[in-house]
Amino acid sequence: MQDDERAIRELVATWLRASAAGDHDQVLRLMADDVVFLVTGQPPMRGKAAFAKAQSALKASRIEATNEIQEVRVFGESAYCWNELSVTLHPPSGQPVRRAGNVLSILQKQPDGRWLIVRDANMLASVAS
Amino acid sequence: MQDDERAIRELVATWLRASAAGDHDQVLRLMADDVVFLVTGQPPMRGKAAFAKAQSALKASRIEATNEIQEVRVFGESAYCWNELSVTLHPPSGQPVRRAGNVLSILQKQPDGRWLIVRDANMLASVAS
Repeated sequence: MQDDERAIRELVATWLRASAAGDHDQVLRLMADDVVFLVTGQPPMRGKAAFAKAQSALKASRIEATNEIQEVRVFGESAYCWNELSVTLHPPSGQPVRRAGNVLSILQKQPDGRWLIVRDANMLASVAS
Repeated sequence: MQDDERAIRELVATWLRASAAGDHDQVLRLMADDVVFLVTGQPPMRGKAAFAKAQSALKASRIEATNEIQEVRVFGESAYCWNELSVTLHPPSGQPVRRAGNVLSILQKQPDGRWLIVRDANMLASVAS
């Protein structure tokens, strides 16, 4: 496996681990400032600050996630990662909410060699938990 | 605008025009044999043959689509295109079905210089028509 592919797989693992641990700052360090998150049925979420705000609204919830990376392809300084993801959100009160499906992310290698997510297409749908 | 970006924008326009005209063979010529279509709430659709089969099931329907390309980024032989799309499917009988949302496609330049869609993340959701 190439170093770049390994770095991208580690980024995905870090994202899930940091989300589960509630380490929101770590999650934010994995995306570009001008990242765009695309989801079904919602307008695009543009920029790291918008993500941070949405993330902060979930601060009291516990997040559990499992994933299986389907594909990582690297083209020089650009790459995509197709990930199959299952996320359960446990709010402080009420029933857990489970969503599962595919995510297609586009990443860019930074001048310092780190990879960051720049575009993210989230096709998760609600499933019975 | 770069030639590659222009070619990708033309591919998108050709796709919509061919879909509206019911020219299914033309649509199939715009994707790689091992294309994967990712949608919300469904398993991945793998390969051009699977797409052709799904397309053929809609043969009797008329398709109307409008779109606005949000972004095209080219990295050598690889590119992504973020498209905002609205599609109305008019079945031979019954009510039209309208779906709208974002699509993030990954394209690859072929040895003959043509661009083809290789991965497609479709985040369209039903909307009132």
